[in-house]
Amino acid sequence: MYRIDCLQFANWSEQIFTEMRDGGVDAVHVTIVYHEDFRETVAEFSKWNRWSEEFGHLILLGRTAADIDLARSTNRTAIFFGFQNPSPIEADIDLVEIVHTLGARFMQLSYNNQSLLATGCYEDDDPGITRMGKEVIREMNRVGLVVDMSHSADRSTIEAADLSERPIAVTHANPHAWHPALRNKTDEVIRAVTGNGGMMGFSLYPHHLKDKSDCTLESFCQMVYNAAETYGVEHFGLGSDLCQNQPDSIVTYMRVGRWTKGIDYGEGSAAAPGFPPQPDWFASNLDFVNIERGLGEVGFSDDDVAAVMGDNWYRFFAENFGPVS
Amino acid sequence: MYRIDCLQFANWSEQIFTEMRDGGVDAVHVTIVYHEDFRETVAEFSKWNRWSEEFGHLILLGRTAADIDLARSTNRTAIFFGFQNPSPIEADIDLVEIVHTLGARFMQLSYNNQSLLATGCYEDDDPGITRMGKEVIREMNRVGLVVDMSHSADRSTIEAADLSERPIAVTHANPHAWHPALRNKTDEVIRAVTGNGGMMGFSLYPHHLKDKSDCTLESFCQMVYNAAETYGVEHFGLGSDLCQNQPDSIVTYMRVGRWTKGIDYGEGSAAAPGFPPQPDWFASNLDFVNIERGLGEVGFSDDDVAAVMGDNWYRFFAENFGPVS
Repeated sequence: MYRIDCLQFANWSEQIFTEMRDGGVDAVHVTIVYHEDFRETVAEFSKWNRWSEEFGHLILLGRTAADIDLARSTNRTAIFFGFQNPSPIEADIDLVEIVHTLGARFMQLSYNNQSLLATGCYEDDDPGITRMGKEVIREMNRVGLVVDMSHSADRSTIEAADLSERPIAVTHANPHAWHPALRNKTDEVIRAVTGNGGMMGFSLYPHHLKDKSDCTLESFCQMVYNAAETYGVEHFGLGSDLCQNQPDSIVTYMRVGRWTKGIDYGEGSAAAPGFPPQPDWFASNLDFVNIERGLGEVGFSDDDVAAVMGDNWYRFFAENFGPVS
Repeated sequence: MYRIDCLQFANWSEQIFTEMRDGGVDAVHVTIVYHEDFRETVAEFSKWNRWSEEFGHLILLGRTAADIDLARSTNRTAIFFGFQNPSPIEADIDLVEIVHTLGARFMQLSYNNQSLLATGCYEDDDPGITRMGKEVIREMNRVGLVVDMSHSADRSTIEAADLSERPIAVTHANPHAWHPALRNKTDEVIRAVTGNGGMMGFSLYPHHLKDKSDCTLESFCQMVYNAAETYGVEHFGLGSDLCQNQPDSIVTYMRVGRWTKGIDYGEGSAAAPGFPPQPDWFASNLDFVNIERGLGEVGFSDDDVAAVMGDNWYRFFAENFGPVS
C-alpha cells in the first residue's frame, strides 16, 4: 500500500520532511506556483534543487511513478511538482514542454480568476476552455503534464475533462453536496472528471470540510465512502491541501497575487482572513494513519483503503507523467 | 486642423518617417506590442528611443497632446505608443503605471483571444470583463492609459465602456453594418463606446473595408458620413491600421503569437494568408489628402472634415493621456 498526498504547500523545512518520513508518506505533489511567471518559476525549481541537495536523505525529486518505489526502498519521500496557475507558461505554448522537462507534472488551467486558458471558480461567468486553452491541453497531453482543475469553474472543468485525450485531475477538493463551498465540486463536475478516467483528491483544508475546523474524522471518511460508492473507488485519493507552518501573509498572497491593488478574502472573510486551524485529527504528515484507520471504520475493505490512501494516485502517476508509450 | 492617425504598425524606416512629414501627419499612434511580455515591451520602447535619437529631425516621442503642437512647430510628427494586447502588464496590476511612465497611452484589453482582462473577438463565447479586468480598468483610468477595445468581443467592449469612468476607444475598426467583418463593430457596440464619450477610428485595412482592396474612396467616406450622422461626428477619427512595408511573416505573427503550434489565418485564409493590398487611394502617409478631399465631397463641412482628420483625436488625447486634473 502506497501513502501519497496529491497536494501540499507547506513552509518546507527539515521538520516537515522528517514528519513525511515518520508519517510513512511515500510521495507528495507539492505546489511550487500560485502566481509566478516563467522566470520566477525557475527560481522555485531551484529552491527544490537546493533542498534536495541539503535534505537528500529525506526527499527525492520525482519524475515518474517508479521514483516512488526508489524513494521507498531508500527510506525517502518522492516530491512531485505542480502549478496552481498556468502563469509559468505565460502566453507561450512551447513552455509546456520546457516546464515538464524541468519536472512539472500537474498544472491547473486557472486559479480562481480567468486565465488565458480557462475560467476560475470566482469569476461570475464561465465561457469554457479558450482558444489557447484547447491548444495547451493538447500539448499537455502530448508531453504528460496533467491537467488539474481544482480551482476552475464548472463549465471549464467539464470541457477540459471532455477535450483532454488523457484523464485529468482535481487534485484537492471535496463534493459540493457534502459541503457547499465554492471550491468543492458538483456532481456534474465529478462525473465528468471521473467518467473520463480522471482522479479527485479529497481535501483536508477546513474551508472545504463540513463544519470546517470542527469536521469529524467520521464525517470525512463517510463522505469518501459515499463518493467511492457513487463514482467508483478507483477515482479517488487524498490531496490534503496542507499548508503547514505558513504565515497568514501567504494565504493573502494566494488570493491577491498581483491582480488587484485591493484585498480579496477568497474563502475567508474580513473577520477571519487567515489560515483556519486544521481539524485535530489531521495537522501534519504524521496523521495519515488516522485517515487510514477512519476509512477502515466506515466500511472500506483493506484493498479500498489502500486504493484511496495512495494506490490510485500511484497508478495515475504511472499512466500520465510522460508521453503515451 | 490636425492630421492624426490613431493606429499604424509599419516597418518603420527613414522613408516612412519622411512620408509622415511630406503627408502633413501631425501625430501617429503606433502599435509597439502584439504579444510581447513586459521585458520584451521594454525592448520595443528602447527601439523607439534609438529611432528618436537617429531621426529626431522627423519624429518626436509624444506624451501629451501638447507634444503634437510642439511637433508641428518644429516640423516633426509626434509618435504615441500603444499595445494591442495587455501582455506587457502580465499578471501584475502595478505594471499599468510603469508602462504609462514609459510612454504607453493605449492598451487593448484583449487581442482576438481571451486575455486575463477581457475576451477577444475570435473566441466562441464572451463572459465580459474579468475580475482582474475590472481592477485594471480602474488603474488605467487613474493613470491615464486609454482602454482600447478594437480586437475585443462585443460584450467585453460594452462592459468596458460602461465600467470605465473615462471614455474608451476603438482605435481601428469600422461599422459592422457597412462591412460585416468579425473585427468591425455592431451598432450596439458603437453606441456603448460613443455614448460613454468614447472615440472610434476608421480603419483602412482592406479586411475591414467593403469590397476589401477594391473599396472606393466614396464608399469609405459615405460610411464615415453615415456614422457621424448616427452617433455624432465628435466621436470619430482615423485609425488606418496601415502596416506599410511589412513582410507577410508579420501578419502570421500577429495572428499566431505563441499561443498555438498550429496556424491561424485570422481574417485571411489558406489561399490568401498574407497582407491584402491597400486600396490605391490609401497606400501610405502621403494619402491622407485623398481622404480629406473625399470627406468634403460626401457633404461634410470644413469643420467636420477637420474633426475627423484629427481634431477629435487631439481633444481626446488632451483629455485622457494623464491623471484627471
